Order: sequence, then structure tokens, then C-alpha cells
Amino acid sequence: MDYGINIWGENNFFIDNDRLRINYANQPALIDIIKDLEDQGIKGPLLLRFPHLIRKQINSLYSNFKQAIKEFDYKGEFKAVFPLKVNQFPTFVKPLIKIAKNFNYGLEAGSKAELILAMTYNNKNAPITINGFKDKDMIRLAFIAGFMGYNVTITIEGLNELNSIIEVSREYDKFPVFIGIRIRLHTSGVGVWAKSGGYESKFGLNSTEIIEAIEILKKENILDKLKMIHFHIGSQINDIGPLKKAIREAGNIYADLRKLGAKNLSAINIGGGLAIEYSQWENKRDRNYSIREFSNDVVYLLKEIAIKKNVPMPDIFTESGRFIASPSTILIAPVIELFSQEYNAKALRLKEKNPDLIEELFDLYNLINETNYIEYFHDALDHFESLLTLFDLGMIDLIDRSNAEILVNLIIKKAIIFATYKGFKNKELKAINEKTQEKYLANFSIFQSLPDFWGLKQRFPIMPITKLNMSPNRSATIWDITCDSDGEIPFNKETPLYLHEVDLSKESYYLAFFLVGAYQEILGMKHNLFSYTNEAIITFDENGDYKIEFLERTQKIRDILIDLDYEIDEIENLLKENLQNTKLDEEEKKELLGELFLLLNDMVYLKD
Amino acid sequence: MDYGINIWGENNFFIDNDRLRINYANQPALIDIIKDLEDQGIKGPLLLRFPHLIRKQINSLYSNFKQAIKEFDYKGEFKAVFPLKVNQFPTFVKPLIKIAKNFNYGLEAGSKAELILAMTYNNKNAPITINGFKDKDMIRLAFIAGFMGYNVTITIEGLNELNSIIEVSREYDKFPVFIGIRIRLHTSGVGVWAKSGGYESKFGLNSTEIIEAIEILKKENILDKLKMIHFHIGSQINDIGPLKKAIREAGNIYADLRKLGAKNLSAINIGGGLAIEYSQWENKRDRNYSIREFSNDVVYLLKEIAIKKNVPMPDIFTESGRFIASPSTILIAPVIELFSQEYNAKALRLKEKNPDLIEELFDLYNLINETNYIEYFHDALDHFESLLTLFDLGMIDLIDRSNAEILVNLIIKKAIIFATYKGFKNKELKAINEKTQEKYLANFSIFQSLPDFWGLKQRFPIMPITKLNMSPNRSATIWDITCDSDGEIPFNKETPLYLHEVDLSKESYYLAFFLVGAYQEILGMKHNLFSYTNEAIITFDENGDYKIEFLERTQKIRDILIDLDYEIDEIENLLKENLQNTKLDEEEKKELLGELFLLLNDMVYLKD
Repeated sequence: MDYGINIWGENNFFIDNDRLRINYANQPALIDIIKDLEDQGIKGPLLLRFPHLIRKQINSLYSNFKQAIKEFDYKGEFKAVFPLKVNQFPTFVKPLIKIAKNFNYGLEAGSKAELILAMTYNNKNAPITINGFKDKDMIRLAFIAGFMGYNVTITIEGLNELNSIIEVSREYDKFPVFIGIRIRLHTSGVGVWAKSGGYESKFGLNSTEIIEAIEILKKENILDKLKMIHFHIGSQINDIGPLKKAIREAGNIYADLRKLGAKNLSAINIGGGLAIEYSQWENKRDRNYSIREFSNDVVYLLKEIAIKKNVPMPDIFTESGRFIASPSTILIAPVIELFSQEYNAKALRLKEKNPDLIEELFDLYNLINETNYIEYFHDALDHFESLLTLFDLGMIDLIDRSNAEILVNLIIKKAIIFATYKGFKNKELKAINEKTQEKYLANFSIFQSLPDFWGLKQRFPIMPITKLNMSPNRSATIWDITCDSDGEIPFNKETPLYLHEVDLSKESYYLAFFLVGAYQEILGMKHNLFSYTNEAIITFDENGDYKIEFLERTQKIRDILIDLDYEIDEIENLLKENLQNTKLDEEEKKELLGELFLLLNDMVYLKD
Repeated sequence: MDYGINIWGENNFFIDNDRLRINYANQPALIDIIKDLEDQGIKGPLLLRFPHLIRKQINSLYSNFKQAIKEFDYKGEFKAVFPLKVNQFPTFVKPLIKIAKNFNYGLEAGSKAELILAMTYNNKNAPITINGFKDKDMIRLAFIAGFMGYNVTITIEGLNELNSIIEVSREYDKFPVFIGIRIRLHTSGVGVWAKSGGYESKFGLNSTEIIEAIEILKKENILDKLKMIHFHIGSQINDIGPLKKAIREAGNIYADLRKLGAKNLSAINIGGGLAIEYSQWENKRDRNYSIREFSNDVVYLLKEIAIKKNVPMPDIFTESGRFIASPSTILIAPVIELFSQEYNAKALRLKEKNPDLIEELFDLYNLINETNYIEYFHDALDHFESLLTLFDLGMIDLIDRSNAEILVNLIIKKAIIFATYKGFKNKELKAINEKTQEKYLANFSIFQSLPDFWGLKQRFPIMPITKLNMSPNRSATIWDITCDSDGEIPFNKETPLYLHEVDLSKESYYLAFFLVGAYQEILGMKHNLFSYTNEAIITFDENGDYKIEFLERTQKIRDILIDLDYEIDEIENLLKENLQNTKLDEEEKKELLGELFLLLNDMVYLKD
């Protein structure tokens, strides 16, 4: 059982005997890093960041495009920015910025707060692009970034924004930024009109608006500021076909705009969308292309158009974020309980006189054999339905019901054994066997840590990090600790997850969720007041040994209450009062108060 | 156009001439409250809370059950708790607690942090119930709440939790809490085994486990602590049928447990799930029952079982949160731009010599009439597809493409006019006409303010709060300001939203989103760093005039960066440095720095 690691793992991890190891430097096992952190008192869910995997992805992006540029003798440059919306947290952004320096890799901002981050931390010569809807303050910030010497391009999403830019430029009497135009493609949808096509998308200017923009720029004498056209056909592009079409369309728009006088228009920004392979199952792969094919296609198509239209080959800009950020982060959640529905004949509480149907179930259980098992199995289900109805009618009692539950389960178990011998020809038994799952309760919140699973049913690769030399024989489903029935990651027979039988009183068992570095943290929800998890940055020293470069603990109860805007003093005072106003003796009150204030500093997640 | 207010509005609002008014006290118009807040500098999205609507819902819950109890001469009491997970924010919880006092309405907690809130603020004699997965610290907190004199019931979700409770009780040598058992019903799903039934649900004990629990309680001599059985068949129950079945099943379990010696078992907790009607469209109603029917059914069924089984009628406990919290909160988002795709013949840029297909489109446009319009419309679409292909092949230019765009749109517009005369027999034209929508860009984030729309496609009633005396003639779709194509609330011909044509340079236009008081805030996501909105609590004084009792402003850029764990000093210093290291003169640097630091205090949302 390799949990599809060859599909999604990109050689970043490997299984070595019982454990999962990081395929870098001295190849530490994940479990050793966890134990190390536990020694420092870390319990509960944990986010591990590996900056070396950020570097690997950035390097992969640049080297593939550079290779393609060389191969096709392409005359434009490759440039890229990281879209901050994918991960704005300092524990991700700061390592990214360090790595970015060598590549001149820049940042993209989609809101004022993201723009402030870009203005603060971006490497000086690396580009900044600004997308999304903008008020004048956002444009002012962009201008100040320009004055700082950053290479800033404001992408306009509509003609109004262009007018706002012009107004702001009059305030400063200078124009320290470039302009980009987001174009609305007809190719990004399937067909045109009356269907959900590119023409209906949320962003961008259609041809007529683009021409109007050019006319406005000309009139204002700032057509030389137009540097880039931009499009984005969607996140996590699984098929490269539509991208090729979009590039052809954008390439022609670029060429025509040059001919309309946009002499400094020199870049096509193909947006993001470079997909990550999240699948653990061969038949469920997410994408039909490699980054090599992706970069070759982009470079080849743009060269072709530029030559045909006799314009300079444009610089190629990308804004892929998921591709850069996802692999760097792993979520680890300890399993805290296993809920199985194992039934034992010893638990039967048969009475002197049992309801007839129970007696019959008991006979079925004793007499089931390899010739009658399908018939007896059907009889058992039938009886069980009848018994449950009798219970609801008040005609049998809870003990009878429990006996029925146990007997039917034991009969099914026997029937499955017989069916296994015979190659599972009975579909119902096969289905029941496949559906019999162990529930693994893990100490984390799906709402906080995997919001895309809740919202988009996005699957992330999941596997245990130990016991990998043993065959996992429990078909599993994963529960989180929220009071919400949506807090479950189910698996089915097409895409099953097998986990190990573990005795949690004797050993720990951890589930790792991979590729969670994009979007999950900023989308994280505080459902049931489960807040952000523990977090550690893991780097490697010159000897190849890992080190815990940064460690932040998950939120305490008192801190999340402060976040909700409660006055913590008020809470402490009221709690104190609530204890004072009891008839407990003073000693007891003091002790309980001490304990209570300690518990206020408990982490929000479970401890055991 | 009443926006379905009679379906979802519960008489809480009414349309008076042009504006929407609150149907309470002096009946203020929402627009007047907004203007009042704008005078205080409030811009951007705004959450309005109306505690009188919390009171109304609590009152409705209690009075309907009390009425049913009277009617059926029921001997048990009605009790209820508010599940904190539905809304843990102080601006909701504190008003709730004040109102709750008269009803002895309590709180339910599903995590340690929620339990701390309950222990702090719950009214002294009102019940506290504790659900969800628990570590020992959570049980310790429950015991301390018991010592404080609260009426605490810990619901066990599995046998392990019962053992933990017993262990904690030994630490204190006292037992100041009651025990509840969450039961796993067979009726809550459809069928049993091999299907997704109640037996597969995330929570609760099956019959055999319940009996084991009783045996443990007996052995430990604490069976007298078993006070409640609990079930929850799901949130937002739209059909009352399954609830009736569940009550019958739970009633029998209750009766049998009494007979097994649980003498103090006196309450059945039917969980939450009482639905809210969110629909704006008659044919899309969410529920098939009233609260009157709901309470009557519960009381009647439990009485019937108790009499039949000869046990005392149990107290009835509910944990409905959505029903209590939803109506109290309204989200208001200002529309900041309208994006239409109106095309004007004046925008045509016809050349001396146009491509043949353009010339043909021009002829179609001039010659289309009421007899040929379907044919000409088809020809136009055909030509347009061809022209777009020619563009992608580089054979026509951007100006030709724009001309094609305009001409095809004008032809479609004419065709639609002819089709309107003829009763829209042409399906394609009908579809295009219905699909022609105005895009209303509103200053809010769907991810932050309506997460259930993103995750569950939950619809909330939406309407403008002014211009209601005018016929809204624009079929609308709503965009938020995030850089995410999921940030759109689309409408279709079955469930359309019509909004008004407005000139936003001359007047404001606000969209109100109703019934957002449950779950939306705690699930709110900070996508693109758009954080919580402005918020105001609106109460009414003795004269019936409204007052703004509390006002909290939306987050500033600097504050959300602090929330992400950035050092704001570091950011300020780096920004300063970035300006210092330029060739600008000192005066300019100073001015820009001043402006930049002001912009750091900008709100995260757009201003214009």
C-alpha cells in the first residue's frame, strides 16, 4: 500500500520500511520530526512547512520555461509573480521572498492589504502585478509602490478603473506604474452566447472595451504605459486544450494592440492555473499534462503568432500560485479514537423467553453455512427490519433490539466469510463488506484545515506516516472533532483509504494530509471555535540535518475568545464571581479557580 | 416585485412606498439606519443586528411548545438551549443572554472554548448541555461549571467518554453534573445497512452500547446521574416526517431505559434542526411544516409513547440554533459598479474595406425584420463564430472583432424585440434574453459574509432596500470584490433576481442579505484578506425610536496584517526604508510616507 505516493508525491517523500521520509538532505522521517515537536510540548494538529519544497517548485517553473525558451529560440523573457491570495501568511511569504530573490520572482496583489505586503517584502527588481477590483486608495498605494522603485503593473478590470488611474496620476503629476489590461476571452468557455462562455466571466474587457481603453490611453498620452495584457482561464487547469486556445486568442490581441500603437506592450500574462496532482488513485488523475508540456506549448504558440503577425515575441508572465505553494505544507493530525462497530456474541443478553424473531435470528446464526448463507443473510436482514419496527411500536425492548443488532451483525460477518470463499458473487454482501468501515477520529477540524474539502470537495492525499511496512486492513473513513456531520472525509469502494489497526492506548498513529499549502489557511473557518493549528517551519542545516526553524503553538481558549472581541478580564471576573457565589468552602473555591484559569490557557483542540 | 418577502420575511419587514421598513416600534426604514451610520463614517459592507428579532424567535419557540403542552395536557416541561456553535460572537450572545433570562433558556457547548462562554455568561438556573468529542479537560470544565451551580448535562458520544467522566469524577470525589447519552437512531437514514443510514452517522451509541453504558453507570453507582437522551437528525430539517419517526424511536428507548433502572432519566433532547424559510420563490420553499405543527407533533408523539409504555412523560429539550439566530442579522452591501454589456451602434469602427462577413453582418443588422428575424439571428451567430475563428487565425484584426461583437449584439437585440411581439416562440432567443444579465458589483466578500453560499450553495433572501416603488427591470447577477470567480451569486430563469437601473454617480444602491445570523460569521473566510465587516446593534428606546447601541468598524489593513502574525513595526520600518532608498526629494518622501501610513489605516474593503 503506497497511498498513491507515486502519483502525487513528485519524489518529495519515500517509504522506508515502516516510515515516511522526506526525500531531501539527510532524509528525516516525518515521525521523528513529530516526536521532536512533541518533546517540546506540541500536541494536536500540526502544520509543517518545508521551504525546500517552495524552492523546488519555483525552480521547476523557471527552469522549464527557460529550457523551452532556449529550445525554441524564443526572444522574449519569462517572468512570474506569486499571487498572495494563495498564501499570505508570514511563515510562507518570508521564506518565499528569500528564495524568490535569485529568480527575480515577484508578487501579485488582489486587495489593498495584499498590496501592502507586496510593497513591504517584494524583492526590489522583481515585478508586482495588481489585479482585482480597485478603489482609488488601492491605486494610490500602487503609485507609491511605483515611487519606491518597484516594477508595478496595474491590471484594469474595467474602463472605470482606467479613469481612476488617470485621476490618481493627476494627484501625483507623475506616472510611476505600468498598465495591464485583463482581456475577456471568447475561447475560455465552450462556445459563445446562450452558453456559459468566456464572455460571461466575472473579469475583463471585451474587444470593444479594449479598443476604447486604447483610445483613452492615446488621448491621455499614456499609451506608452500599456505594458501587459492578462487573462486567467481558471484555477487548477486539468486539460491543456483550452489554455492553448486562449494563448492563440491573446497572442492575436497582443499583436493587434501593438499595431494600434501600443509600442511598449511587451508582455502576455497567462495568469495561473498550473495544476497540482492531488489524486491518490491512478484512475482519478487531475491533469493531463506536465509542466514541461505546459511551458513548451506556451512558448511555441506565442512564437508562432509573433512571427506570423510580425511583432516582437512578448515576455511571458505567469501567476501560478497553487503550483508553487501546495507541496510545501503538510498537515498532521493525530488519531485519537477508533470507532468500529464490532459485535461480539458475548455481548448477547438473551432472555429466558425471547421474541420469536430473535429466536429465529439465533437459529440463523447457528445454522448458517456455505450453501445457505445468501438465503439466511436475506432472512436476517428481513427479521432485523421487522424487529426495528416492533421496537418503534413498543413491542420489543432495548435488550431485544441490542440482541438483534448483534445477531444480525454476526450473521453478516459469517455470510461475508462464506462469500469471500466463493468470490463475492452476491452483490449485497459485497457492498456491505466494502461499506464496513472503521471510523478514525482525528484531532483536527476539516473546516479550519481543509476548507476546500468542505466547499469544493477537493481531495488531498492522505496517508499514515508509520506502520508502512504493515498491510493496512481497515477500510477507513475520517472524522474530525467538530460537532458537525459535514466534518467527515468519506471514502468509497472506487477511492478507498485503508488504514492500520492500532491500539491507541499503546501507540500513536498520525494521519498526514499533503499539498495543503495553497488557500487552506486563509480560508480556514473557526467552526466550533477550533482555530489555527500548531505550525512549524522545518529547514535543513549545512550537514543536512533538519531543524525546527520556527514554532508557533495553536491558539489558546483565552486567545480565541479575545479574537471574537470578548473582554478577557470580564470573562475572568465573571468566572471568578460564579465560583465565589457558591457554597463551596474557600479552599475548594481557590483550587477550582486555579484550575479553571489554567484550563483557560488550554489549547482549543483536544489534548488526549 | 416583493422579492418573496411574504415567503421568508415572517412579517419582520414591510415595503412602504419606495423603502423597506422594520415592522417593529416606530418602523424605521433600513435606508435611514444606513444613512445614519454613514454619517458616522461607516462605509462598505455592514452587519445589522436586531435583538428584538432574537426575542421574537425565542418567544415563538417557547410559546408554541407551551401551547402544545397545554393543549395535549402534557406533564413534562419544555426546555431549550442555544447551541453556541451557531453564533459565538459577543454582539449576538450578550443580547441573547439578557433575553434568555425570562425563559430560562440555556446554552449548548460543543468545544472547550464554547463551554467557557457558557460557564461565563449563562443565566444561573438555565441548563447547559455539552455535546461533541471531549478530552478530560473539557470534562473538568464541565465539572467546574457544575460546582458553580449550573445545571450541566454532559452528553456522551461514545463509551470512552463515559469512562473519562468517571475518571474525572474521582479527581473531584463529587459528581456535580448530569449525564446524557447521544443515541444512534436507525430511523434517521433511509433503510438500514448497505445504505447510508442512521447507523453510519458520526455521532451516538447504538442499542448495545447504550445497554453497556447503563451497566457501567450501575456498576459505578451513578445511574441516578443519567438524565437525558439526545439525538439530532440534521440541521435545517425540511420535512417533518423523519423527525416523527425519530421521536417514536427515541421515546421507546427512553421508556426502556427507565425500566432498566434509569429512574432520573427525565428528558428527551430532540436536538436542533427547526428550519428557517430561506426561499424567495414560492416553488422553492425549504420546509413543509410550521413551528406550530412541529411542537404539536413532538408533544403528541411523546405523550402517546409515555402512556403506552406507562412511564412519566419526559421533559422536552431542544437545541435549535438556526431558528433562533438567523432572522436577527442582516448584511448590507453597497453596489459599487454595474457591468452591463450594452453595445451601441455609435461604437462601430467600420473601415473603408471590411471583411466580407462583417459587411454581411452589417446587412443583416440593417435588413432584419419581423419575418426574417429568426433566420437572420442564426446567420449572425454563425458569422460571429466564423469571425472569432478568423481572429484566432490572425486573419481579421481587433477592430473587426469589435465590430462583429457590436453588430451581433445589436442584431440579437432587434431579434429579441421581434420575438417579444411574437411571444418568444424561438427557444434560443428566449434563452439569450433570459440570460442577458446586468452584473451588480457589491462591496463585500461572499467568502467572508456568506460562506454557506460558497460551501453549501445555501441561498439567502436578497433585495434592495430602496426604489421599491419602481419596477426593477434588470435581470441581475451579483459579484463580490474578491479575485475569485466563485465570488458570484448567479440567478437563472427559474429563480431570477430583478434589480433596478441606477446611476451610481448620482445615488446609492444597497443590497440587503437576510437571515444571515446563523453560522456565517464564524465560518467567515478571509480570502484576499477581506475580513469581518462593519457591525451595528440596533435597539429601540421607550419611545419606539431606534438607536445604534453598538458600532464596530470593519478591520483596517494594519490590523489584519497583525492578525496574520506580521510584525506591524517591521512592516512600517520596511515601507519607510523602501521610500528612503529612492531618489525622490526629501519633501516628496515625507509626503508619500504620510500618505502611506494613512492608507495602512484604510479599511480592507473598497471605499468608493
